Amino acid sequence: MLIEVICTGDEVLTGKIVNTNFSYIAQKLEDFGLAVRWGLTVGDDRADLLRAFLDAGGWADAVIVNGGLGPTVDDLSQEVAAEAAGVKLVLNEDWLTRMKAYFEGRGRNMPENNVKQAMLPEGAELIDNPVGTACGFALNIGKARFYFTPGVPRELRRMLEREILPRMLEKQGAKNVIRLKRFHSFGLGESHVDSLLSGIEQLVPDGSLKLGFRAHYPQLETKLTVRGASDAEVQAKLAPVEAEVHKRIGNFILAEDDETLEGVVLTLLAERQASLAVVEGFSGGQLAARLAPLPGSEGVFLRGIVVRRLAELYGALGLDGNAPPDEAALTPEVAVAAAEAVRVQAGASHGLALLVALENEQEPANIHSTICVAVSAGGEVASRRSRLIGNRDWVRLGAVEMGLDSLRRYLKGLPIREKIDFERAAPN
Amino acid sequence: MLIEVICTGDEVLTGKIVNTNFSYIAQKLEDFGLAVRWGLTVGDDRADLLRAFLDAGGWADAVIVNGGLGPTVDDLSQEVAAEAAGVKLVLNEDWLTRMKAYFEGRGRNMPENNVKQAMLPEGAELIDNPVGTACGFALNIGKARFYFTPGVPRELRRMLEREILPRMLEKQGAKNVIRLKRFHSFGLGESHVDSLLSGIEQLVPDGSLKLGFRAHYPQLETKLTVRGASDAEVQAKLAPVEAEVHKRIGNFILAEDDETLEGVVLTLLAERQASLAVVEGFSGGQLAARLAPLPGSEGVFLRGIVVRRLAELYGALGLDGNAPPDEAALTPEVAVAAAEAVRVQAGASHGLALLVALENEQEPANIHSTICVAVSAGGEVASRRSRLIGNRDWVRLGAVEMGLDSLRRYLKGLPIREKIDFERAAPN
Repeated sequence: MLIEVICTGDEVLTGKIVNTNFSYIAQKLEDFGLAVRWGLTVGDDRADLLRAFLDAGGWADAVIVNGGLGPTVDDLSQEVAAEAAGVKLVLNEDWLTRMKAYFEGRGRNMPENNVKQAMLPEGAELIDNPVGTACGFALNIGKARFYFTPGVPRELRRMLEREILPRMLEKQGAKNVIRLKRFHSFGLGESHVDSLLSGIEQLVPDGSLKLGFRAHYPQLETKLTVRGASDAEVQAKLAPVEAEVHKRIGNFILAEDDETLEGVVLTLLAERQASLAVVEGFSGGQLAARLAPLPGSEGVFLRGIVVRRLAELYGALGLDGNAPPDEAALTPEVAVAAAEAVRVQAGASHGLALLVALENEQEPANIHSTICVAVSAGGEVASRRSRLIGNRDWVRLGAVEMGLDSLRRYLKGLPIREKIDFERAAPN
Repeated sequence: MLIEVICTGDEVLTGKIVNTNFSYIAQKLEDFGLAVRWGLTVGDDRADLLRAFLDAGGWADAVIVNGGLGPTVDDLSQEVAAEAAGVKLVLNEDWLTRMKAYFEGRGRNMPENNVKQAMLPEGAELIDNPVGTACGFALNIGKARFYFTPGVPRELRRMLEREILPRMLEKQGAKNVIRLKRFHSFGLGESHVDSLLSGIEQLVPDGSLKLGFRAHYPQLETKLTVRGASDAEVQAKLAPVEAEVHKRIGNFILAEDDETLEGVVLTLLAERQASLAVVEGFSGGQLAARLAPLPGSEGVFLRGIVVRRLAELYGALGLDGNAPPDEAALTPEVAVAAAEAVRVQAGASHGLALLVALENEQEPANIHSTICVAVSAGGEVASRRSRLIGNRDWVRLGAVEMGLDSLRRYLKGLPIREKIDFERAAPN
């Protein structure tokens, strides 16, 4: 299926907005085995939109148009679609009724200019939008089936996933039910996971399971797409593959599907009626900032301490003895003492320490770092020491991920010391 | 000038990478009065690239092509450019020599496949890339002048700003020197600043000064673009306008050009040989995380304390008396006590407290928040109370910005209580 995506709007064309809708659409289609061939961005300009629609109708099988369905005069998608298809605009009474109800539900009268959003090209198929006033629609222009979608990301997502993808897949003659299963991991590179999972597609002999990846440091997303005639068939195919993925890379999987690492950690703590205090150094609050603002954290996240220099650590934690004089003195034992001290200080069940020492900062692209992580639950402690090399952001992102992932591993009873691909041996 | 931008590469077309190069190019051109008319994304596919180049050569005056200049077989820009222009590829000896020197400087021999990067369409104009091995080039295809640029953002930026923009502006017959002056502010909306600056373009009577905006909550960027025949002329035109901008919105300007708010705050503290301790609540470490990881912060940022619930505040700060029982008890006085306590605890010259109380969290898009900020330098304290309404992220981003901006204002001797546009009156 030849697919073009047309993103419309001056804000996107002038770069005021980064076009994340395009990457979302392209990724989502790829998840279901469809490939975007041509991506276009045009402004709110009648002539340019017409040219774009006619060009696309001349060669593509399916075209997704994003944006231009709003109530204002610079929203031109319906009008130009009608012109390109050689039909007129007609009022869709169903959608008008739905919009009026939508406004009434919010205690307001529908403004007159919203009527425009119910004017669709004659013969167009209405596509539902339960979360906004811009309905989508489908229409043939030239040889292509066009799908018009709203620019608001939340509305686009729902419409693409629930309405448009099923239509496109059905048109393509694919089996009806498709499921995407995602695993998020930390510590293994894409090619490493690819080799660890080698042969896994063959566990479903009819070729209806596909493996894919998306790397976004520090995490890697591993994606399984499976097709079948029914939910039951899809589930039956997926179950043994999921089990095999867990068997091969299980310890490294920190979250699945829409979960996040910080959400998983918070849930693990809440399930155990545990509470947390953290102390961190170079990460400067970014570890705390992953957990503390989450809904529900107020009963779990008790305290965070940030000290930019190790020399401040003992004072901040009320520890006796001499503070490490500088970053070169950082050891896992220092992290263990810090984790336990912050835990006791805050009266929490668990303490987490993430301390980082940077070397050769004069080479900003190539900073060598030592990372010490410790988790303490009173009597029981665990710690790891690791080395990362890269620029400041790279080291910091990796360190924060390692800190949170160490806590996840501890809470799940997994080893917190396990070699990761990003690690480098000490330079000397 | 009719301009098309063509972004190439499978990673961009499949959405694996969000296309920030496109928005950067479009914004940068806009800064200098040039408008992108048509934006295209194509994969690493010979036929698609050829079609894209020929289409663009048929109507545009200038085309910027991004990506596809690397040493691997899927980097096709030079080859397809030559085909589209009807010329052959020839070795550019100058660039080959430069590349060899580039590798030698890093103690390596140039791999054989890098030779490909010195193969340019016959008659193409070489465009320098002092920071990488992919040279740019310019070439006529059809009626358009094509500018080929590397996909690596850092290399693209330098080449566009220093090499390609001057060529495009010269071609357009614009005056030679152009300068972009940027002001970053917090607290005033785009239309408000627009009206406050009304008439400012007329301070330069020949029409060579242009005012523009880019809103990215919580900050607003105000942009002045000025053209002239020389640096001196541009500077002479700009100086009175800059002064007028400062006069009208000065207190709200938190940084200029490439500065950041956190960088400005750190510099202000360092200049005064001051040191800082912060305590924050709902922002959960995000205030600390703006400052603490910056290079040079290790001598300034002494300590950060995060308490997710107000009830933990007094314990964390070692304050006597009863802690506020819950968020409803939050007052500026609590923030003042907290700022002073964290300052003393850490032995810092300055203390900053940012405390936030959320109401009606059951309406996640419409949370009412009370924000209390206090700065203390021992005897001298300042505080403000403010209300923001929005979702969690919106409230948090606004609160962190308000906290940092209050510290900037305090250090500069400006009032920290000044009404901002984002504020809402209390609901009752």
